[in-house]
Amino acid sequence: MLHLNLSKTGLITAVNIAMKAVPAKTSLPILECFLLRSAGGTVTLTANDMEMAICTRVSNASGEEGTIAVGAKLFSEIIRKLPEEEVELSADENDQITIVSGKAKFTIAGKDGADFVDMPSMETGNPVVISQFTLREIINQTIFSTAPNESNKMMTGELFEINGSRLRVAALDGHRIAIRNCDLTDTYPRFSVIVPGKTLGDISRIVTGGTDDFAELYFSRNHIQFRFDDTVVMSRLIEGEYFRINQMVSDNYEVKMVINRREFLDCIERSVLLIRENDKKPLVIDIKDGYASLSLNSIIGSLHEEIAIEKEGKDLTIGFNPRFLIDALRAVNDEDITFYMSNSRAPGFIRDAESSYIYLILPVNFIR
Amino acid sequence: MLHLNLSKTGLITAVNIAMKAVPAKTSLPILECFLLRSAGGTVTLTANDMEMAICTRVSNASGEEGTIAVGAKLFSEIIRKLPEEEVELSADENDQITIVSGKAKFTIAGKDGADFVDMPSMETGNPVVISQFTLREIINQTIFSTAPNESNKMMTGELFEINGSRLRVAALDGHRIAIRNCDLTDTYPRFSVIVPGKTLGDISRIVTGGTDDFAELYFSRNHIQFRFDDTVVMSRLIEGEYFRINQMVSDNYEVKMVINRREFLDCIERSVLLIRENDKKPLVIDIKDGYASLSLNSIIGSLHEEIAIEKEGKDLTIGFNPRFLIDALRAVNDEDITFYMSNSRAPGFIRDAESSYIYLILPVNFIR
Repeated sequence: MLHLNLSKTGLITAVNIAMKAVPAKTSLPILECFLLRSAGGTVTLTANDMEMAICTRVSNASGEEGTIAVGAKLFSEIIRKLPEEEVELSADENDQITIVSGKAKFTIAGKDGADFVDMPSMETGNPVVISQFTLREIINQTIFSTAPNESNKMMTGELFEINGSRLRVAALDGHRIAIRNCDLTDTYPRFSVIVPGKTLGDISRIVTGGTDDFAELYFSRNHIQFRFDDTVVMSRLIEGEYFRINQMVSDNYEVKMVINRREFLDCIERSVLLIRENDKKPLVIDIKDGYASLSLNSIIGSLHEEIAIEKEGKDLTIGFNPRFLIDALRAVNDEDITFYMSNSRAPGFIRDAESSYIYLILPVNFIR
Repeated sequence: MLHLNLSKTGLITAVNIAMKAVPAKTSLPILECFLLRSAGGTVTLTANDMEMAICTRVSNASGEEGTIAVGAKLFSEIIRKLPEEEVELSADENDQITIVSGKAKFTIAGKDGADFVDMPSMETGNPVVISQFTLREIINQTIFSTAPNESNKMMTGELFEINGSRLRVAALDGHRIAIRNCDLTDTYPRFSVIVPGKTLGDISRIVTGGTDDFAELYFSRNHIQFRFDDTVVMSRLIEGEYFRINQMVSDNYEVKMVINRREFLDCIERSVLLIRENDKKPLVIDIKDGYASLSLNSIIGSLHEEIAIEKEGKDLTIGFNPRFLIDALRAVNDEDITFYMSNSRAPGFIRDAESSYIYLILPVNFIR
């Protein structure tokens, strides 16, 4: 039983956030629902796909204490189409839900709120505090380097490593590593966790605040909790010890190339037009004094292009998967980037002077 | 062999238009190509899916006389990504195509232009002239009533009927009829043709001009030709005699309901949230003095809503497929619409005072 007075705008905002934790497929039908709960003067919407749970407060809502579960997709569609801002929602003893707005009255079947799998509770200590803008950025600038499938579970997640006042986020998929470092305002004892990539992708989409809005991150042995604005997101962690990325990233190089990021990226984006889905053609970069020749040859055709560079060190010809270069170059905002290489078989890395980002990419063999 | 100087912008415009006549699937690989032709100082791009052919002039283009065929999809992708506005395209005696723009040089395989299936020629008499705006409107406001599949070929097309200075366009699918009438500035002898819906859908997307831009329509026994701006579109016609729509559309009614279009449409759009894909639940309209009660019941739930109306005639309860009502109401711009009905088994029709549009819809049975 439940009786609520709600605002359409507040509901839509809450639904858009909580929807991220509604599973696309599930064998447990109750998980396809939102839990609507009114308690202590607060109305909340909760969703839980058993890996991640989201609970968010519905603004401008009030009503009697109670809960009801409602099919998330249908509820989301209905509230978007309601005629008026004012919405009255009630559920009877048979979990029959009535939604009234203006002269429109919907009646749909709900489910007993007691059957819903609620967000697990978690002991929380001191949170790590970070701006919502930075949280979103560090995720977006690394997440493409996670592996998409489950053949190595660890690779589907990202390392969150805190050391004093430094947060390091890293992702790797066996061909490349993406690392972002950022400074925190407080200092914390050293620790690290592995957060599922799926969770981070969702977080980056629902954390919409700027540099002056903050998010709190809480950690337990098996869980991470993100708190921001009116929302709590709780996710399982990936168990185990992450790869030793310090041993993979070196500071040594024999060639240093400074190149305009936009020109480099545009050229590589042109080159991938010549690659069909499963083709693995390298972009070959011929680095000389003053310019780099980029070329790609495939069954479809060839592209050849020259770009002005600044170079230190020897001449080098080296091949890369062009899609990995595109991902890294898109994640950087700098006008010029610096690309460090050693030889045609050793990894190259793109890094700024402060090491706020490091993108390491393994080269691929090529036949001239 | 071919050597052209082109502008990227001109090429992109031409490609976007001609692409509509490139078949998604074909057993004849040459049809997946554009024909690039330079003749008499004009450079054109042609595509032909054997039902419809499009030939469009490339603006700001010049070069030696010649032709080459080039894979349409790849060419479209490449030109969009070229670095500079100036483009040089050449084809050698082996149909090898080189595209140079700035410092980027693409090399791809073309095909002999002589193998391309060119647009058929057509004897043309006096054209029917109509504004591009009106042509686009009358198509968009009727095409949803064509039948999507080929079980009745005639229903996949639209009637274009000219009578004096009047053009009538009609589409029907067995459950509904959509008719638009418009006035022409000239008068023509009476005749009618059936134009494939696929052609008209494409025309409505590439004819982008306003009320002061004109399109010329030419007719032969088996073909229609549209000429506008720098483009000629030629399409087969559907053979046969169209349905006698005059006999299907009557002026008699027993109930006349005037209703706000937006309120009516919004309510029906809400109601279809309760219908799953293949479900066929009617929207039941209960028409009384001063108001209409709309209701829909399905396995998902129910919606009930009341809307103020002006009514003439008896009370009536009648059911319609809500999607057909949505299509018709979206195609009309009027603030209020007038809906004429007779009884729960006779077609209802939405029509303005001048009969510039008529949307006739068969009712469906319902159980109260």
